[in-house]
Amino acid sequence: MTVAYDNQNIFARILRGELPCTKVYEDDDILAFMDIMPRADGHTLVIPKMPARTLIDIQPETLSKLILATQKIAKAVKIAMRADGITVHQFNESAGGQVVPHIHFHVIPRFEDVELKGHTGKMADAAILAELAERIKAVV
Amino acid sequence: MTVAYDNQNIFARILRGELPCTKVYEDDDILAFMDIMPRADGHTLVIPKMPARTLIDIQPETLSKLILATQKIAKAVKIAMRADGITVHQFNESAGGQVVPHIHFHVIPRFEDVELKGHTGKMADAAILAELAERIKAVV
Repeated sequence: MTVAYDNQNIFARILRGELPCTKVYEDDDILAFMDIMPRADGHTLVIPKMPARTLIDIQPETLSKLILATQKIAKAVKIAMRADGITVHQFNESAGGQVVPHIHFHVIPRFEDVELKGHTGKMADAAILAELAERIKAVV
Repeated sequence: MTVAYDNQNIFARILRGELPCTKVYEDDDILAFMDIMPRADGHTLVIPKMPARTLIDIQPETLSKLILATQKIAKAVKIAMRADGITVHQFNESAGGQVVPHIHFHVIPRFEDVELKGHTGKMADAAILAELAERIKAVV
């Protein structure tokens, strides 16, 4: 069963400029921005500009670009946040943990003996996200 | 700080044939096999044959091959396990959740309203892993 791409999903609207985001990186194929419900300070999302729902349906060429950008962002987040490690999550379908039906990689900085924050549903302070994004952009 | 690759890590030993694994897929660049401490039935690991510790230090060309193989395995696992979704984890450094210092993607089949099993440290029954691997290999 193939599920159609929903042009009204939040990331599609961000890509069209209809909704704001706190941008970290952009090129012809990729956008990276701060997760507004971060599980750690510096939690960044990396998405392709091409519409794709999941790891199952994304075109291989787009997937290659997406993972190389994710690597670039992981390096920058690790340096900017002085993190000990990086956790990458990529969720497919609601059963797999996916909330927004446009494929994305979560890049989450990690520190020894610090658990991820839970899913509180609370949005981060926009000024703090902007400051974190500047730190990451400076080393991307 | 660059940490050297440890040639004695478990996945390096599996790649050299010094330790067994329950193989799901192999090509010139990639090996995929069953996680012996699965967080769900069908939990599969995808690794490059080239030595690389993390997402930070892996060569881009190898990373591209690794994610395309991960996509192939995700498709097969989803079909074989009749899963509703797929969760992908990729952990870097112990702070990031990494246990074996050879880069790997976790491909975990998911079902509506079923949580991931915890990290019990218990090894799965080898016969069950072999049967699950056969189901995945049949559709890879």
